[in-house]
Amino acid sequence: MLKIRSLVTAVALLGSMSVANAWEALPTQAAEPADNPSTPEKIELGKQLYHDPRLSSTGTVACASCHNTMLGGEDNRPNSVGVGAQTGGRSAPTVWNSAFNKVQFWDGRAATLEAQAAGPVTNPIEMGMKSWDDVVARLKTINGYEVAFKEAFGENAITKENATKAIAAYERTLITPNSPYDKFVKGDKSALSAQQIRGMEKAAELGCTSCHSGAAFNGAGTFQKFPTISDGFLEAKYHFTKDKGVAEVSKKAEDEHFFKVPTLRNVALTAPYFHNGSVATLEEAVKVMAKVQLGKDLSKDETDDIVAFLNALTGEFPKQTMPTLPATSGKTVN
Amino acid sequence: MLKIRSLVTAVALLGSMSVANAWEALPTQAAEPADNPSTPEKIELGKQLYHDPRLSSTGTVACASCHNTMLGGEDNRPNSVGVGAQTGGRSAPTVWNSAFNKVQFWDGRAATLEAQAAGPVTNPIEMGMKSWDDVVARLKTINGYEVAFKEAFGENAITKENATKAIAAYERTLITPNSPYDKFVKGDKSALSAQQIRGMEKAAELGCTSCHSGAAFNGAGTFQKFPTISDGFLEAKYHFTKDKGVAEVSKKAEDEHFFKVPTLRNVALTAPYFHNGSVATLEEAVKVMAKVQLGKDLSKDETDDIVAFLNALTGEFPKQTMPTLPATSGKTVN
Repeated sequence: MLKIRSLVTAVALLGSMSVANAWEALPTQAAEPADNPSTPEKIELGKQLYHDPRLSSTGTVACASCHNTMLGGEDNRPNSVGVGAQTGGRSAPTVWNSAFNKVQFWDGRAATLEAQAAGPVTNPIEMGMKSWDDVVARLKTINGYEVAFKEAFGENAITKENATKAIAAYERTLITPNSPYDKFVKGDKSALSAQQIRGMEKAAELGCTSCHSGAAFNGAGTFQKFPTISDGFLEAKYHFTKDKGVAEVSKKAEDEHFFKVPTLRNVALTAPYFHNGSVATLEEAVKVMAKVQLGKDLSKDETDDIVAFLNALTGEFPKQTMPTLPATSGKTVN
Repeated sequence: MLKIRSLVTAVALLGSMSVANAWEALPTQAAEPADNPSTPEKIELGKQLYHDPRLSSTGTVACASCHNTMLGGEDNRPNSVGVGAQTGGRSAPTVWNSAFNKVQFWDGRAATLEAQAAGPVTNPIEMGMKSWDDVVARLKTINGYEVAFKEAFGENAITKENATKAIAAYERTLITPNSPYDKFVKGDKSALSAQQIRGMEKAAELGCTSCHSGAAFNGAGTFQKFPTISDGFLEAKYHFTKDKGVAEVSKKAEDEHFFKVPTLRNVALTAPYFHNGSVATLEEAVKVMAKVQLGKDLSKDETDDIVAFLNALTGEFPKQTMPTLPATSGKTVN
């Protein structure tokens, strides 16, 4: 038994390094942490909180404003716009399939969806609340939340911990299975066009999938340096190295320009591209990646084939009921 | 026959002037203009456009941002926040049941929902698009809209006229029937509490419903002067007369401080109150109205009874599917 497992591991390791990529379909369910099992009540509450602009200081910015569930899970802007029309330096990552990220944020500074959900609410340039105590105090003025938290968590349940647990439980439902790629991997050989299959093989051959690996094409939580090869022309154009990535948090020189490997799922819907949203089109993003990560100049045909393949990673978006947000009771919140 | 009709008219006129108010339930369907009959395709397209922030210059403000369909049809703010964090001087009216308004905007400057929908998109402090030509050009870059407009209107259909028709068709579905008041009027005498019935009778007796008349309590498109009785204390506190209302558009002295009579449907959900959103609570709004419109000081009991009645005007919000917005195709829109 031990021998067989070692052999399997060895083959898997070889597979991940070779052209014969281990192509995996997207799971339809995400694992739940032991301390936050999903329930319908928690998911419904999380959906309300996620779409509620009253979680921001001005009452105008919800989680969904920048991570838009009606779009590709973000806002198609280089940098999102927070309260008071402020913008940061990074591009909002998609919320779709974020349950399959091992770490959250571009610099991976949150290990869980729960930890991630706590961040933007009190970020002064995002949702701008002074503190989670203020958020909790505001939620307590909205009677419907008193009821919804009680149904999800029991008595006296309006807390930061429960709010972020509910949001995370909702986010775990935001999965987009059944892309043409998934159908192909599951055996429907007509699901991809000849060009898409060429692009898929090219992506593996070039080495794209050695980092963008696994079912979510996100390297299962790995970090990579970006760019790895300096290119004066592209740097002058896109300013990739202005942001030090993980080092902005860790303050360690060896972490400079390391970023979480982002998912390629639904990447055709999430322009513009890269941590700073500096590249407007998917074509250019593919060419840039080949150049600064792999040291390769792609031909137009190669680029087009890979872009065609990336378009096959657009999944099916589950139909969602629009949440009815608990009413502000005869009084404005801010 | 003529005699009978005259008699009916006379009785109706008497009724509208007397305490015996003609209480009407909210219709469940809104009339459609002859040149814009509703179809499922048009409504679905309108729902997408209504929720699409890409109709604003920055890609951050949708119709739904200020007229939030997940809330009481507006944003619970004194004044809404447009692109670049700009605010105007008026409070966003609710979109729910706006199909039953005879005129739109606080100053009634749009006669139809179609005409209203054209306004905010190019208002520099609201959605900030330079022109509808720019809006149309942008929509044409989004492939899914090409398809959706074709399904709703036929070939080469992306135009300002069709976009506003689709939005209006969607808005005509935003009706909240079956409030406790509606159930009461239809014969369920247990639908209102004793206090709510007292408040209902008091509202008619005081004269509230002589302006807030009809099924939507909006005077069927009438305009009224507000305030009619000047009150130095309240004016100093709430600055009601800073906004000249209809006269801001007509520039006629006789229109000064005239406003559209707003609906009272779901009024408990739409704090803060009045054209400038200056009054935070429904209690205070009721007291102010009695004072500056009817010259009456209400007791606490009278106020509480009327507020209880107004809470009975909160209807049932139809469950809506969240629209999936057509994808930005590998390129940001702004």
